[in-house]
Amino acid sequence: MVGIIMGSLSDRSVMQEAADVLTTFGITWEIDIVSAHRTPEKMVEYAKTARSRGLRVIIAGAGGAAHLPGMVASLTTLPVIGVPVKSSNSIDGWDSVLSILQMPAGVPVATMALNGARNAGILAAQIVGTFDETVAGNLGRFKEELKEKVAEMSRTLQG
Amino acid sequence: MVGIIMGSLSDRSVMQEAADVLTTFGITWEIDIVSAHRTPEKMVEYAKTARSRGLRVIIAGAGGAAHLPGMVASLTTLPVIGVPVKSSNSIDGWDSVLSILQMPAGVPVATMALNGARNAGILAAQIVGTFDETVAGNLGRFKEELKEKVAEMSRTLQG
Amino acid sequence: MVGIIMGSLSDRSVMQEAADVLTTFGITWEIDIVSAHRTPEKMVEYAKTARSRGLRVIIAGAGGAAHLPGMVASLTTLPVIGVPVKSSNSIDGWDSVLSILQMPAGVPVATMALNGARNAGILAAQIVGTFDETVAGNLGRFKEELKEKVAEMSRTLQG
Amino acid sequence: MVGIIMGSLSDRSVMQEAADVLTTFGITWEIDIVSAHRTPEKMVEYAKTARSRGLRVIIAGAGGAAHLPGMVASLTTLPVIGVPVKSSNSIDGWDSVLSILQMPAGVPVATMALNGARNAGILAAQIVGTFDETVAGNLGRFKEELKEKVAEMSRTLQG
Amino acid sequence: MVGIIMGSLSDRSVMQEAADVLTTFGITWEIDIVSAHRTPEKMVEYAKTARSRGLRVIIAGAGGAAHLPGMVASLTTLPVIGVPVKSSNSIDGWDSVLSILQMPAGVPVATMALNGARNAGILAAQIVGTFDETVAGNLGRFKEELKEKVAEMSRTLQG
Amino acid sequence: MVGIIMGSLSDRSVMQEAADVLTTFGITWEIDIVSAHRTPEKMVEYAKTARSRGLRVIIAGAGGAAHLPGMVASLTTLPVIGVPVKSSNSIDGWDSVLSILQMPAGVPVATMALNGARNAGILAAQIVGTFDETVAGNLGRFKEELKEKVAEMSRTLQG
Amino acid sequence: MVGIIMGSLSDRSVMQEAADVLTTFGITWEIDIVSAHRTPEKMVEYAKTARSRGLRVIIAGAGGAAHLPGMVASLTTLPVIGVPVKSSNSIDGWDSVLSILQMPAGVPVATMALNGARNAGILAAQIVGTFDETVAGNLGRFKEELKEKVAEMSRTLQG
Amino acid sequence: MVGIIMGSLSDRSVMQEAADVLTTFGITWEIDIVSAHRTPEKMVEYAKTARSRGLRVIIAGAGGAAHLPGMVASLTTLPVIGVPVKSSNSIDGWDSVLSILQMPAGVPVATMALNGARNAGILAAQIVGTFDETVAGNLGRFKEELKEKVAEMSRTLQG
Repeated sequence: MVGIIMGSLSDRSVMQEAADVLTTFGITWEIDIVSAHRTPEKMVEYAKTARSRGLRVIIAGAGGAAHLPGMVASLTTLPVIGVPVKSSNSIDGWDSVLSILQMPAGVPVATMALNGARNAGILAAQIVGTFDETVAGNLGRFKEELKEKVAEMSRTLQG
Repeated sequence: MVGIIMGSLSDRSVMQEAADVLTTFGITWEIDIVSAHRTPEKMVEYAKTARSRGLRVIIAGAGGAAHLPGMVASLTTLPVIGVPVKSSNSIDGWDSVLSILQMPAGVPVATMALNGARNAGILAAQIVGTFDETVAGNLGRFKEELKEKVAEMSRTLQG
Repeated sequence: MVGIIMGSLSDRSVMQEAADVLTTFGITWEIDIVSAHRTPEKMVEYAKTARSRGLRVIIAGAGGAAHLPGMVASLTTLPVIGVPVKSSNSIDGWDSVLSILQMPAGVPVATMALNGARNAGILAAQIVGTFDETVAGNLGRFKEELKEKVAEMSRTLQG
Repeated sequence: MVGIIMGSLSDRSVMQEAADVLTTFGITWEIDIVSAHRTPEKMVEYAKTARSRGLRVIIAGAGGAAHLPGMVASLTTLPVIGVPVKSSNSIDGWDSVLSILQMPAGVPVATMALNGARNAGILAAQIVGTFDETVAGNLGRFKEELKEKVAEMSRTLQG
Repeated sequence: MVGIIMGSLSDRSVMQEAADVLTTFGITWEIDIVSAHRTPEKMVEYAKTARSRGLRVIIAGAGGAAHLPGMVASLTTLPVIGVPVKSSNSIDGWDSVLSILQMPAGVPVATMALNGARNAGILAAQIVGTFDETVAGNLGRFKEELKEKVAEMSRTLQG
Repeated sequence: MVGIIMGSLSDRSVMQEAADVLTTFGITWEIDIVSAHRTPEKMVEYAKTARSRGLRVIIAGAGGAAHLPGMVASLTTLPVIGVPVKSSNSIDGWDSVLSILQMPAGVPVATMALNGARNAGILAAQIVGTFDETVAGNLGRFKEELKEKVAEMSRTLQG
Repeated sequence: MVGIIMGSLSDRSVMQEAADVLTTFGITWEIDIVSAHRTPEKMVEYAKTARSRGLRVIIAGAGGAAHLPGMVASLTTLPVIGVPVKSSNSIDGWDSVLSILQMPAGVPVATMALNGARNAGILAAQIVGTFDETVAGNLGRFKEELKEKVAEMSRTLQG
Repeated sequence: MVGIIMGSLSDRSVMQEAADVLTTFGITWEIDIVSAHRTPEKMVEYAKTARSRGLRVIIAGAGGAAHLPGMVASLTTLPVIGVPVKSSNSIDGWDSVLSILQMPAGVPVATMALNGARNAGILAAQIVGTFDETVAGNLGRFKEELKEKVAEMSRTLQG
């Protein structure tokens, strides 16, 4: 089970992509709004109980001074994947990227590209796939589909 | 009373300037290491009890993905002054600046210049000076000293 | 009483948010156009008489090479909150942010996020709240409302 | 087993930290020089055989136009952790960071802070810890040590 | 013969300009979709056989973490011209530019301006023109046309 | 007569170059420390009396949030040349550059390269040279010297 | 007489503002398209004859890798004012700004804000005003109008 | 024959690498100081006669507002390779990179990494190698040496 959280409902359209891709890999997920700055206690509770509730990976998206991924990582030993969101209050996304990426030694966050929620879901699947053969197989097929899409684009271009 | 906190002992040489300038204004202070990422529970405790322990202002310094000032601000209604520290793990200070400055609506952090701990102390004194006439008077004298230093530099230059 | 000033009428839509949030905290305010570059004498007069006119905090917004917050801070001992405005003549906001944030030692400006006028109003309220129990109480309730909004968003998401 | 690769021997001092921290968690590792640009065939071979050789996670460090982590990720379904190295040919690290972080949808790289090889090792341990209880326990103890170090720094500061 | 490749069909509108300008210089070209991250084997095959298939120059366009030009350059001794594309997943183009430009010593990529596919075609013609007198002559006439366009603009301006 | 001012004695080594080059052109100058933030009244006085005191051009150097050039320009109709100084409190010079360069419409500052005080002196001479034939002649000879220096370097290179 | 040149007709809407403001100051001007890269000989001719044709100041606008202002400055002893234009091929204007601003010692360009052609016209007037009393008087009145506009905005705001 | 030029003798240590690598490929070269800003006429002469003097490729290095590569490209139909040099007057190299890279449509410069003169030499060899079989063969051997160096580093690492 993968937990997906975001700081605001406005991040939903970006973060839903993580959930969607997990579904295609056959991995269950839960999703919620958890704000580091507006609901710090909920965030602490969420992160500290994550492992015992059965989560294996947490995907956290946030924009601007994006503290949610790093703070959750400080409160759990599960791998945390951070998605910098280019929110309306962001300076071209640089603030989101740097405040998630530049974590101090001891507390890693696996940072994705700006708005890269789809890749967050794939990375979560790759983590699950390190011990789950079914998911590993699905990942192999997914790579084949990527190739096939390029072949299609090639045919369209040269059409 | 002003609380001064920082994420690591390596921030001490920068942050001590805040304490020093507060002393010259006749304002008491306490100082501690509180790490958002390594001691999240201590941080929560520190911030939630700050007002009741008699603090009026909190000065928080941190580098890299600097979450301490913003997280403390999320947990107290006291004014929080953030000092971006150009730590060894920082990309020229941009990460520290942006992860303190770009707070979402609802949770302000009064952000200082990179390594601007001395100004954090002065701003804390200005806040105290809004209701404390003695400190307000000290601030007036401080401005006069700034002018006098320029006059001295002018004499040196034109020697 | 909080003074709100801005360099141009074009900053109004951003800066009005500071006034609006102060009203919700029960704090009075005045608002004016004061341009560092077009009305330097008015700026000097405004800043030098601010304390004696009863202002406790000044909020100053400006864009581009934004000198208003720093220059006002050089002329008063009141706390000055600076709001970098992403004006039409700004390079993605970086000029506004850096020319407000990077003040030299001796003259702090409490810098907010780009276009962060709402947070400027909240910080002003936090400063007033250091000595005014009613405002401090309002700030506590405001934090509860932030939490409740997240709870609502959470229900909407999981709807 | 974790595979650690880097583009040049000059990255060794940074990347060795990943190996060191893995050892403290009781996780075995192998290390090699694999250059995307100078040994592309070796890279292809390394990545395509990684899973069958028993690797669970790959940590790849590179500087400048850092293609190694992303190219390895394109050739395996294992999770790949990328470490941007601030090499001598780097523009303040921005090139390394962006060319690892900004991967297109479909091929994630778990990006660490600049020179963040120690965190790469910890994240690899967290991934192993999703299915290995011993490593998960070690990670819990590691978090306690982080706290204790802050407590020690706090005593030193207040000494 | 010049080979033009791009990472995705979405780069077509930019990259077609390279083909168009080559046609005006009387140089033949082929075009295809080759993705470093989704079709790494196709990329290896393309690059390794390029010289023997009669290509003289390769133009490669890509966006975000743009590895295609550099990886192709690692696999051929032909000159490779890289076009950073400002794709939808790019941070204002900086990622595309830096991940193409900042190649390590040993493996050059002739980098063009952001979206500069037209210039890529002209540079390819200049390379062909170092040994082909007809193309060299066409390039001389092209320079005259550039001048004439400015003369026309001058007449329009001065109406 | 050219007025040279700077915000701090620490800018002296940079700004002295402006004075030195003016001397070689036979133009008189005066120099002083005038701080926008520490001596705002002195700055106002300096700028408002500059024309009547016989100054033709003002060169102003400052670092960090560099308000001196722009504020002086707001208070005089003389041309003002701004020199961004990479001071110790500057973020790689970006703050100095942007807070001098990005002046709003109505109040220009002729901005020089980072630490470009020598060019500030040359530009001041070019301004004087628009109406002073002797200085214009000196500028012509100066251009010849630039050429001769390159010729010397060429001989050195080719040994 | 002031010469206004730009690299392309597409810069016209920006650069026309320089001409318009010069007209209001009673200063004559000429305008033309001169491209450093497409008409280098015309540029050399323009710059070398500028002084003898009676020009006192040259205003040059260009975008992207903007070489026109600096190259013209290398070929004349007249003051050259550079206007970085945010053209369609520019990376957020940074390329235009830096390639005009960062001139080497010996060859200054008076750089304006991005798209700051209006200020270029005002600065040209200030240069003329150093020896022309009528223009100096007009500049004084212009400053009064700036103040009056702020007073109007103030009345609108406080309506 | 390849022409190597640079704006100042201070660029020599960087640019000599281009010459050295050309020698290893058996390609002759000439080298000179040609400054766009200090010797514009020499630059025009150099570029316009380059093809007739037998040059096939021009390598031009410059720092700061680096106009040499682009201006030379405007004056010849030969391929021009630009090397951004991180000179003492450069802002971290960004000015050099952008003023060489961001050339307008019509006038390409093959831009190398910051200080990437060695790659400029290799690219020049690749251009020569499009019609010279001996050089093409040398380039093939050079790629083998790159691989062998990695193999050596691998042995060193694994001790």
